[in-house]
Amino acid sequence: MRTRKKNWTETELNTNKKLISNPEIYKGKWNTYFENDNPIHIELGCGKGHFITSMSKLNCNINYIAIERQSQIIAQALKKERNLQCSNNIAFFITDIKSICNYFDSGEIKRIYINFCDPWPNRKKWAKRRLTHENFIKLYENILGDKGEVFFKTDNKELFEFSLNQFSDKNWKLHNISLDLHNSDFEGNIMTEYEQKFSEKGMPIYRLEAFYDKKRNTLF
Amino acid sequence: MRTRKKNWTETELNTNKKLISNPEIYKGKWNTYFENDNPIHIELGCGKGHFITSMSKLNCNINYIAIERQSQIIAQALKKERNLQCSNNIAFFITDIKSICNYFDSGEIKRIYINFCDPWPNRKKWAKRRLTHENFIKLYENILGDKGEVFFKTDNKELFEFSLNQFSDKNWKLHNISLDLHNSDFEGNIMTEYEQKFSEKGMPIYRLEAFYDKKRNTLF
Repeated sequence: MRTRKKNWTETELNTNKKLISNPEIYKGKWNTYFENDNPIHIELGCGKGHFITSMSKLNCNINYIAIERQSQIIAQALKKERNLQCSNNIAFFITDIKSICNYFDSGEIKRIYINFCDPWPNRKKWAKRRLTHENFIKLYENILGDKGEVFFKTDNKELFEFSLNQFSDKNWKLHNISLDLHNSDFEGNIMTEYEQKFSEKGMPIYRLEAFYDKKRNTLF
Repeated sequence: MRTRKKNWTETELNTNKKLISNPEIYKGKWNTYFENDNPIHIELGCGKGHFITSMSKLNCNINYIAIERQSQIIAQALKKERNLQCSNNIAFFITDIKSICNYFDSGEIKRIYINFCDPWPNRKKWAKRRLTHENFIKLYENILGDKGEVFFKTDNKELFEFSLNQFSDKNWKLHNISLDLHNSDFEGNIMTEYEQKFSEKGMPIYRLEAFYDKKRNTLF
C-alpha cells in the first residue's frame, strides 16, 4: 500500500504541469505565466486543495496560486485539480510561507487566503509561527503593495482572537467578522476539507476579512 | 414587602445627592460640577452599579458618571455608592442613552463603558436598539470629540460579533479583543453583577476596546 501511494504521489508531483518547480523566475511577471492581467489571489497552505480548486472553477477571471509546504499534501491538491479539469487560471508551488517575498513583487497579489492554518495552541513562545503573527503580516503587506486583503478562516478560537488583534494592531481594517460562519448570513462560502469535518462536529467556524491600505497604515 | 422596597428606593432617589436631577445644565461644564479638570468616563447602563462604583474607588483622578434609564435600578447603584462611601468623583443621572448628546459637549468625555447591554437577540429589525449600532456610535463620536474610546463587554456572542463589525466599519480601531476574558491575560478586570453571574455558569465573556480618532475617521 505504501509503495502504491508513494508512486501515485510521485507521479502527480512529476507530471502535473500546474505544479511550478521554479516559481522564483515568475517574481514580478506572473501575468506572463497566466498570459493575462487578471488579479492574482493566493492561498497560503492549500492543503488538499478543495478550496482553491473550487474557487478557480467558479471565478475564471481570477488567477489562483496555491502554496503548500508539504509535497505529500500538495500532491493531493494536484490530483484534485486534475480530476476537476481546472483551466489555466490556477498554479501550485511548494515553499515555506516565510519565504513568500521571494516569489512575488510588491503589489503583485490582490488577495491572500489563509484557511485553517496551524493554531500553535497554548504555546506563547510559538506565537511567531502563526500565519497571522505580525511578522507574517509584514510579509503580506510587502506582496500586497498599496492595497490588498487577507481572508482568514479557522476553527480555533484562541487563534482567531489572536488574529483579530494582530491585524487591528497593525492598522488593517477588519470586515465581515464572523464568530459562527455556518450560522451567519455570509453567502458563497467554499468549505475546505478541514472545515467540512469540524463543522460536521458542530464546532463554530470563525472568519474575518482584513484590509490593508498602505496610506492608512503609514498615517496612523 | 413591596411597600418597604418602594420606600427604600424612593428615599435613595430623593436623598442621594450624587443623583443629578438636572444634568443638562452641566453640558459643557462638568468640570465645574466635579470642581476639577480630571478626565470624565461614563458608563451607559450602569445597572446595579458595582462596576462604576468600584472604578471610582480605584481611580480617584478620574471622574465617573453612571447613566441608567430605569430609576428602580439606579436606586440600587445609589445605595451601593452610599455603602461604599465613594468620594466626589462619581455622579449619576437617569436618561435614555439616545439623548446622551443633550448632556455632554463634544470632547467632554474621554471614555465610555458599555457593559452587558441588552443584546436584542435574533431580531434583526431591532438591531438599531443595540448600544453598539452605528447610530449610537455616531452619538459617541459626538461626545468624544477628537479622540476617545469605548470599552465594551458582553456575554452575548451574536452581539459581540455585531459590535466588532459596527466599530470596524465606522473606522474605529479595535484593540485588546477578548473572546474569553476570564481565561485571558487581561488584568484589572472589574466584574459587573451580570458578569459574575454569567461567568459562574462557565459562559465566556467577550470584551473589546474601540478607539475613535476623528482625523483617521475622516480620512478613510
